Amino acid sequence: MRVLGIDPGSRRTGWAIVERQANRFVVVASGVILTDPDDPMPTRLRVIHEGLRDVVLAHGPCAAALEEIFAHKSAASALVLGQARGVAMLAVAALPLSTYNASSIKKTVTGNGAADKAQVGRMVTVLCGESPRVADEADAIAIAITHHNHALVPAARSTKRPRGRDMWTEIARRAGAIP
Amino acid sequence: MRVLGIDPGSRRTGWAIVERQANRFVVVASGVILTDPDDPMPTRLRVIHEGLRDVVLAHGPCAAALEEIFAHKSAASALVLGQARGVAMLAVAALPLSTYNASSIKKTVTGNGAADKAQVGRMVTVLCGESPRVADEADAIAIAITHHNHALVPAARSTKRPRGRDMWTEIARRAGAIP
Repeated sequence: MRVLGIDPGSRRTGWAIVERQANRFVVVASGVILTDPDDPMPTRLRVIHEGLRDVVLAHGPCAAALEEIFAHKSAASALVLGQARGVAMLAVAALPLSTYNASSIKKTVTGNGAADKAQVGRMVTVLCGESPRVADEADAIAIAITHHNHALVPAARSTKRPRGRDMWTEIARRAGAIP
Repeated sequence: MRVLGIDPGSRRTGWAIVERQANRFVVVASGVILTDPDDPMPTRLRVIHEGLRDVVLAHGPCAAALEEIFAHKSAASALVLGQARGVAMLAVAALPLSTYNASSIKKTVTGNGAADKAQVGRMVTVLCGESPRVADEADAIAIAITHHNHALVPAARSTKRPRGRDMWTEIARRAGAIP
């Protein structure tokens, strides 16, 4: 199963297509959509929307995941973030969308709900054997991994059959989600 | 010149196509796009985006106008408003977009920057000879009227030639914007 993790922002939108294969995660593709702060906002929103739409068309994820935002430093920046988030949600409107709060994402990836950005980046490297170039990309990968964890999809449904019993299948079995 | 005024919201998005004819404003079409709070947010954002895109295709406005948001009661509601605003901006990304702050809109329509919603609704009825059904629609009409005022477009450019010298042309002439 391919999951699209998105970390939207008006200036930088991180995205990652993550696949679970056996007991590891494979980053199929990832990147950052950059917008020019000198461009008018509708143009920047179009860049984000079209960029994410292209990712969906190119990689065919079957689910999308975003960070859930509860608190924000200011209403003004929340409004601007909301605009980027709105067009990101629109770009994936055809897919089931799940949201996870920041501490749940950090806990899934690092085991610590209060981990800092650097820790998340390091653990993403460990889990995927790949070093994300920028923090926005690492965050998008972490969000996709969190969805893989929470979705508890039986391994047989993933696009490649795992060679052994993987950790998430084991978690799902213990939770009684699969026999 | 046809202007599309938009008052976006995650639940109700008011819109109005307003044309200036001589010294009066004509509401060519207006309405409210409603979304179902029980639907997932991406579905609701798609309803707003497609609704506004249909309005643009049906009525061919040559400019769009939105209220500029500076302050908001809370960061959480600003984020949700931002999402609706983002897809609204995306729907009109092909048009020049202007934003006006609330007091400027109120002052243009009622002469008083601190006017309440009811006053705005009454003055919209006076200026357009038409009574908007709901506040969101009245706000969208007021935003479009504000753009007509600020854009100071010479009357000759409007789709119908005015029969006399209109008030906005007079304002433009006095401001030195047109000879």
